[in-house]
Amino acid sequence: MSGDFRGAPQVYGAPMPTNTSTSSSLDQQHIAIVGASSGIGLAVARSAAARGARVHLFARDAERLHTATAGLEAGRHTLDLNDPDSIQAAFAGIPVLDHVYVAAGSAAFADPLHGDLERDFAKVEERILGSLRVVRAAYPKMRDGGSFVFTGGVSTDRPVKGAWATTLATAAAEQLARQLAVELAPLRFNAVSPGWTDTPMWDVLLGANKAQVFAAQAARFPVPRLARAEEVAEAVLTLMSVRTISGEVLHIDSGSRWI
Amino acid sequence: MSGDFRGAPQVYGAPMPTNTSTSSSLDQQHIAIVGASSGIGLAVARSAAARGARVHLFARDAERLHTATAGLEAGRHTLDLNDPDSIQAAFAGIPVLDHVYVAAGSAAFADPLHGDLERDFAKVEERILGSLRVVRAAYPKMRDGGSFVFTGGVSTDRPVKGAWATTLATAAAEQLARQLAVELAPLRFNAVSPGWTDTPMWDVLLGANKAQVFAAQAARFPVPRLARAEEVAEAVLTLMSVRTISGEVLHIDSGSRWI
Amino acid sequence: MSGDFRGAPQVYGAPMPTNTSTSSSLDQQHIAIVGASSGIGLAVARSAAARGARVHLFARDAERLHTATAGLEAGRHTLDLNDPDSIQAAFAGIPVLDHVYVAAGSAAFADPLHGDLERDFAKVEERILGSLRVVRAAYPKMRDGGSFVFTGGVSTDRPVKGAWATTLATAAAEQLARQLAVELAPLRFNAVSPGWTDTPMWDVLLGANKAQVFAAQAARFPVPRLARAEEVAEAVLTLMSVRTISGEVLHIDSGSRWI
Amino acid sequence: MSGDFRGAPQVYGAPMPTNTSTSSSLDQQHIAIVGASSGIGLAVARSAAARGARVHLFARDAERLHTATAGLEAGRHTLDLNDPDSIQAAFAGIPVLDHVYVAAGSAAFADPLHGDLERDFAKVEERILGSLRVVRAAYPKMRDGGSFVFTGGVSTDRPVKGAWATTLATAAAEQLARQLAVELAPLRFNAVSPGWTDTPMWDVLLGANKAQVFAAQAARFPVPRLARAEEVAEAVLTLMSVRTISGEVLHIDSGSRWI
Repeated sequence: MSGDFRGAPQVYGAPMPTNTSTSSSLDQQHIAIVGASSGIGLAVARSAAARGARVHLFARDAERLHTATAGLEAGRHTLDLNDPDSIQAAFAGIPVLDHVYVAAGSAAFADPLHGDLERDFAKVEERILGSLRVVRAAYPKMRDGGSFVFTGGVSTDRPVKGAWATTLATAAAEQLARQLAVELAPLRFNAVSPGWTDTPMWDVLLGANKAQVFAAQAARFPVPRLARAEEVAEAVLTLMSVRTISGEVLHIDSGSRWI
Repeated sequence: MSGDFRGAPQVYGAPMPTNTSTSSSLDQQHIAIVGASSGIGLAVARSAAARGARVHLFARDAERLHTATAGLEAGRHTLDLNDPDSIQAAFAGIPVLDHVYVAAGSAAFADPLHGDLERDFAKVEERILGSLRVVRAAYPKMRDGGSFVFTGGVSTDRPVKGAWATTLATAAAEQLARQLAVELAPLRFNAVSPGWTDTPMWDVLLGANKAQVFAAQAARFPVPRLARAEEVAEAVLTLMSVRTISGEVLHIDSGSRWI
Repeated sequence: MSGDFRGAPQVYGAPMPTNTSTSSSLDQQHIAIVGASSGIGLAVARSAAARGARVHLFARDAERLHTATAGLEAGRHTLDLNDPDSIQAAFAGIPVLDHVYVAAGSAAFADPLHGDLERDFAKVEERILGSLRVVRAAYPKMRDGGSFVFTGGVSTDRPVKGAWATTLATAAAEQLARQLAVELAPLRFNAVSPGWTDTPMWDVLLGANKAQVFAAQAARFPVPRLARAEEVAEAVLTLMSVRTISGEVLHIDSGSRWI
Repeated sequence: MSGDFRGAPQVYGAPMPTNTSTSSSLDQQHIAIVGASSGIGLAVARSAAARGARVHLFARDAERLHTATAGLEAGRHTLDLNDPDSIQAAFAGIPVLDHVYVAAGSAAFADPLHGDLERDFAKVEERILGSLRVVRAAYPKMRDGGSFVFTGGVSTDRPVKGAWATTLATAAAEQLARQLAVELAPLRFNAVSPGWTDTPMWDVLLGANKAQVFAAQAARFPVPRLARAEEVAEAVLTLMSVRTISGEVLHIDSGSRWI
C-alpha cells in the first residue's frame, strides 16, 4: 500500500456505461431496493414505480416480498445481507442500475455495561457490511449519474439510553455515505435519517404500547406527528434524482433532533 | 420577560386555518417565492408551477420580474427586503399560503482586515432581517403543514478567503431555520445550501472568467459538474412537500464540501 | 476583486515577529482579555495570570475593571466595542501579543414576530463587529503561534424560544472563528461555547429566580451542575496553549446539548 | 425490554464513591492510560504524571511498556483489547479511578470494492469493543467527576480514499463518547480527534516517505505543522480536568479539516 491515502490514484472498478439523460426524472430509471418487503423499503418501491421507474426488489423472504408487493410490476430477488454470495447472485442478472436504496437496518436494546457486547455490535456490522456488500454487487452495473442511498437515523444526532448499538449503526451508515461519496465518485452516496417512523419494526419492539408511545413522542416534537414511510421514501427519491447531491444525510424527523 | 427561555409559553400569532390535505403533493398549494426574477428563485417558481402549485412571485424590479416570468400564470408583487412596509404591503392581498421560499442572498468579497466592516456586515443583516421580515408578513396566512425555506450556502461548511460576510450570512440563514423550526412550530423551517451554482449572480462576480472558473471548480468535485438552479429548486420543493422535515439544511453542492 | 475566492492570494497584513518558543506554556505570554471586568473574561484574566501570563485587560468601564481586578498585576485599558477608534486606541500602546480572548457577548429576549427586529439584530452585529474590530487592532501585534478565542454558546446547537438574536450571535461567532482560521492563518482562531454558566449576566436576566432556574436546568443535564466561569476559562487557555488547535469550538455545557 | 428507550430508568452499576474535590487539578488523581507504550498514550502518561496524577499504564506488551516508560512512577499492567478477560484482570487490582484514556486505534488501508471487508471491519470492531470493554472494567472504580476519553480522528470530518475502515472507526469512537455521555451520566465521556500526528504508527505506515509526506501535508494546513503527541495529550488532560465538558470531540488537527 501507499500510506498517502489522499494522493492515491483511484483505479477501482470497470468503466461505467453512460446514461445520456441529464434530467432529474426517475422515469425508466432502474432502481434497486434492498429490504423491499416492508416499511421504508416497501414505500420506496411503490413511490419509485409510481414515478415510472423500473424497480428491482430484494428481500430475505421471497414469499413475504411477493405478498407485500403483489400487483407491483417489478423484478424480485432474495438475498441475505450476511451472505455475500447470495447478494452477488441476486444482482447477477440485472444488466444496469441507476440507483440503489439499502433499507437494511434494525434497532435493538443494548446495555453497554451488562449486555452481550459482541452480539449487540453485530447489529453495527450487519448494517455496514450489508451496505458495502450491496455496493460491491451493484457497482459494476451503475450508470452515470447513479447513486446509493443508505439508512441512518436520528439517534446519530440525539443518542438515547439503551441504544448504543443503534446509534453506532446509524452514525456509521451516514459516515459510509460520506466516505464513499469521496472514494467512489462520481457515483453519488447519500443517506436518509428517519426519526421515529411508523413502520412494522416498531410493532415488534413496542407491541401494544406502540400507539401510546408514538403519541407521547409526537406531542413533544416541533411537527407533532411521526413520519410515515412514504415521506421518508420521498426523501430517498429526491436524493436519487437531484444529481448534484452527494455525501448528504437528509433528516425526516419532525424536527425532533432540535428539541 | 421571563428569563427562562426554555419554559416560556408560545403565545405568538393568530390561530392558523387548517389545511386538511395530508398529501405531499404541491398541487393547488399556494407558494410564495421571494426573489423570483432570476436564478434559484426563478427556477423554484417554474418548478412549483409545473407541479400544479399556485405561485406568488416577489421581486424588487417589477419589469424584470415580468420579463423573466412571462407566460407563467402567477401573482406578481414588488418589494424591497430592506423596507419592511413594502414587504407587508406586497403580502397584504394574499389570503392563504402554504409555503414560502426566500431566495434573497448575494455573495460579495470582504476583507476582514482592510475592508469596510459595517458595509460588508450589511450583507449579513440583509439576508437575516429580509428573511425575518418575510416571515412576519407571511405568517398570518400560513396553513397547517406549511413551511419556509431560506437560502444558506456551502460556505458555511467550507469557509473560503475573502468571503467572511458571505459565510456569516449563510451560516446565520441556516441557523435561523433551526431557530424558527423550534420557535414557530408546527410551521416548518428549512434551508437549502447550494454550492457553486450556475446563476446570473456569478456572471456579475466572475464576468468573462466564469466558464473557466466553473470548469476548474467542477473538476475538483466528487460530482464533476456544478449544480443547475433547477436542481436546487427540486431540493426546495422536497423540503416543502415532505411534511415531517423541519430544521433541515439540504446541500446541493456536488459533494464539494467533503473534498 | 477576483471572484475566485479560493484561489486568491493572501496578502493581508504586515510580517509577524517570530516567537521562538515551541512550548505550550503560557508563562510570559502576552494575553489580551476584552471584557475582563466580570464573568468568563474575568476568570480568564485570573487564570492566565496564575499561569504566568502577562495580561492586558480591556473593559468599557475603567472603575468597574479596576475594582474587579484589584490586586492583579495587569495592564488596564478602556474601550467600547461599538467604537472602532476606541479599540484601536486601547491596543495602540501594546507592543506584542500572543493571545486574545473576546468575552463580548450578551443574551437578550427577542420575539421574531413582534419584537423590534433591528434592535434585536444589533446584538448579533455587536458580537461580530466587536470581535472583528478587536482582530484588526490586535493583528499587527500578534506573534507566531498566537491565537484569538471568541465566545459562542450552546444556543447554536440547541435553539430555544425567545432567543433568536442570541442563537444567531453565537452561531456567527463560532463561524467567524472557522472563517478566520482559514483566512488569517497561520494565526489560530477558536471559540468557546459555554452552556448555562453562572455569571453576573444571569443575575440581571433572572434576578431572584436565578437559583431556582439554575437548579432546575442542572437537574436535567448529564453533569448535574452548571459550569463555573473558571471552567470555561480553563477551556479558553487550552485553546490558546495547544498550538495545533484552530477552527475549533469547545463546548463547556455539562453535556446539555445531547439531551 | 421496554421499547421506550428515552423513558427507561437507568439502573446500571454500583453506587460511585464520592470524590469531594471540586478543583480541576489533576494532582493526586488516578488516571488510567490504555495503550501507554507509545504515541499519544505515552504522552498522556508523561503529561499526567508531570501534573501530579497517579498513573496506571496498560499495554499489550509488558517489556515494551516498561522500556518506553522507564523512570515514570506508575502502575503497569498488560491486557489485550480483544480479550475481555485480560482487561478485567488488568483493572482488578486498582481500587479507584478518576479518569481513563483509551489510545487504542490504528489506521489501515482498506479498499471498499476489492478488499477483505470482514478483515477491514475488524478495525472498527476493535476500536469500539476495546473501548467498551475498558469502560466495563473501569466503571465500578470511577469516582465522582470522573471521565473517559476515547480516540477519534479527523477522518471523521474529512474522509479520504482508501480509509473507509479508519473513518468508520473514528466516527464510531466519537459517537460512542456522545452515547455514553448520555447513558452513563454523570460520568463524562469525551474524545480527542487528532489530525495527522507524528507518532510511531506513521513510521510503520509511511516508512522512509514519512518526512516527505508529513511536510507536504503540513504545507497545506492553516497551521503549517503537524501536531505532536504532547499537544494531543494536553487536549486529553483538559477534557479530563474541566468537569463540565462531556460529549465533546476536541480536534487537534492544525485546522486541516477546514481546508
